[in-house]
Amino acid sequence: MQQRLETFQQWLKDENIEAAFINSTENVFYLTNFHTDPHERLMGLFIFPDAEPFFVVPGMEARQVKDAGWSGEVIGYSDHEDPWDFIKQAISKRGLNGNKAAIEKDVLTFGRSEAFLSIFNEPEVVNLEDKLNDMRVVKDEKEIEIMRRAARMADFGVEVGAAALKEGITEMEVLAKIEYELKKKGIREMSFSTMVLFGEKAGDPHGNPGDRKLKAGDFVLFDLGVVLEGYTSDITRTFAYKSVSDKQREIYETVLKAELASLEASKPGSRIGDLDQIARDIITEAGYGDHFPHRIGHGLGINVHEFPSMSHLNDGILKKGMTYTIEPGIYVPEIGGVRIEDDVLITEDGHETLTKFPKELQIIE
Amino acid sequence: MQQRLETFQQWLKDENIEAAFINSTENVFYLTNFHTDPHERLMGLFIFPDAEPFFVVPGMEARQVKDAGWSGEVIGYSDHEDPWDFIKQAISKRGLNGNKAAIEKDVLTFGRSEAFLSIFNEPEVVNLEDKLNDMRVVKDEKEIEIMRRAARMADFGVEVGAAALKEGITEMEVLAKIEYELKKKGIREMSFSTMVLFGEKAGDPHGNPGDRKLKAGDFVLFDLGVVLEGYTSDITRTFAYKSVSDKQREIYETVLKAELASLEASKPGSRIGDLDQIARDIITEAGYGDHFPHRIGHGLGINVHEFPSMSHLNDGILKKGMTYTIEPGIYVPEIGGVRIEDDVLITEDGHETLTKFPKELQIIE
Repeated sequence: MQQRLETFQQWLKDENIEAAFINSTENVFYLTNFHTDPHERLMGLFIFPDAEPFFVVPGMEARQVKDAGWSGEVIGYSDHEDPWDFIKQAISKRGLNGNKAAIEKDVLTFGRSEAFLSIFNEPEVVNLEDKLNDMRVVKDEKEIEIMRRAARMADFGVEVGAAALKEGITEMEVLAKIEYELKKKGIREMSFSTMVLFGEKAGDPHGNPGDRKLKAGDFVLFDLGVVLEGYTSDITRTFAYKSVSDKQREIYETVLKAELASLEASKPGSRIGDLDQIARDIITEAGYGDHFPHRIGHGLGINVHEFPSMSHLNDGILKKGMTYTIEPGIYVPEIGGVRIEDDVLITEDGHETLTKFPKELQIIE
Repeated sequence: MQQRLETFQQWLKDENIEAAFINSTENVFYLTNFHTDPHERLMGLFIFPDAEPFFVVPGMEARQVKDAGWSGEVIGYSDHEDPWDFIKQAISKRGLNGNKAAIEKDVLTFGRSEAFLSIFNEPEVVNLEDKLNDMRVVKDEKEIEIMRRAARMADFGVEVGAAALKEGITEMEVLAKIEYELKKKGIREMSFSTMVLFGEKAGDPHGNPGDRKLKAGDFVLFDLGVVLEGYTSDITRTFAYKSVSDKQREIYETVLKAELASLEASKPGSRIGDLDQIARDIITEAGYGDHFPHRIGHGLGINVHEFPSMSHLNDGILKKGMTYTIEPGIYVPEIGGVRIEDDVLITEDGHETLTKFPKELQIIE
């Protein structure tokens, strides 16, 4: 944590930024190990190139901030106090001018940015998210260890879902069963709305689970993940129920081939955009190019969607410690859809897939 | 919907506001009946005092906007396009100056406010949330009908939780069971993180469910709610498990007396702050004033916390159609805590409690 803070402070120095306000649960967690969502109440970290940083939280959380390991100043406030009064004092005590100030432009509200920026004299405003995204994109050993466990929980969710399948069961019933078993293992939050889609509904990449009943010949698509100790996982597996047509098999094998090829290219030094292109070429050659309407994946970590963007346009280079999803799909109206998704970690000389659930086509009886 | 839009446009006229940008899922839903959370993608409603409003959404959602009943202009955009290019064109086509513009100051991000406001010439910025909060505070018949059903689902959640109690079961196991049964009934989203707390853990108003095991003599506190068709519910019930001490009974009866008194005062014309004060006086007289650290409740509707604020400081007056929670509590370290919460609707001459689960002290065997 201390090292992350120092890296960030060095950046402030290099950019001549005099004050930074970090308000998002995710970035505060990344820099302090303190994870909270105080909803409408103000919580945030104020960082300066040289002066001591301070942490503002609702009073009842002040102790937890210390427990999480934050050794700097903590300012707690109660519900009848205005935290901005304390913030102004703390900043003025540090004697700053603030000709250049940094905020999270894409998440900070207008109201809070106004309160922060008004402390200074019409400062130039810089987006600090670029720097933190850049820092967060390479994971350290401790983060990787948590993400491995989060991925195994996602595997377990697919296992529960597959075991629950039977003629006539609904998508929502299977979904409820998956989340029930995960909650019993202590998972308090899924990383996004769990998706369980049957038959033609799996043919819509934005479908919503409902009361569609399972029947023979359906594809069954699971897309789910958990939040574990502040980190996310995200897996997709597709099964056939009772039977599979030649067409369905062709779609499945094409997606699998594309996924494996994209994984094969997952190693230090690869151009990120190539991972999308490799999979896209395979799917296009098989005649399904128009049925793969999304990018190959997304970065994964504290947020379930973060950097790097796994689009064919990304000219960035893969580095050891990056984590992301690879998830090609083919969606054909009426027939249904197939998507296969793994969480990937770039290692010293290749990659490790954090999700381990088998991928060969399984026909559930 | 059309009437809500007209009311809002009339307000723009009265305030000489030339353009308004509404970005939050909740306020867009309130004005259009279209409910979506497009995550990082831009979605929003642009409204003017006289000119035709327009609705910007990711292209794949454009049809759903029409299906939801929006009859005005819809601008869809794809992932490789910048929606602000279209927004600028649409605004310029309407020939506006925008000396005064309105946004949701407390939820709109700095980045989006910058993009919107830069279309005009350094406009004065008004917070439109005050007006929409004011409109949303009185519910119409259709909203009330949905909230009634949402409240009955919350009742059902408590029923499931109470039935699941047995020696040695953990808080998380009971929580999983509740959400499982609600999901099977089609509930896709809880209105907040479900709370199941046993014994001394119920003594912390901000406690988190974990692996605490149930034992005889524990209080069991459930606090939960669902999202149904865009509207929320929120109930709290507290039970005793197997036995109850005299002290526990005194605490329970004090909270219940406070809750009933506050409900009694729930009628058109009452000062809102009095509902808190009445309950607080009863709790203070019983000697537990220091153990009731929060306000009596909160407004309820599309958001699980909305207006009116049910604090003792609120000088507002209750009106027919307002909906809110009443939830006094007493929390005593080691002994545990009791909270009893209902969802309340102000009627023509009194109130209706939307949650119906019984409130007399129940000792679960």
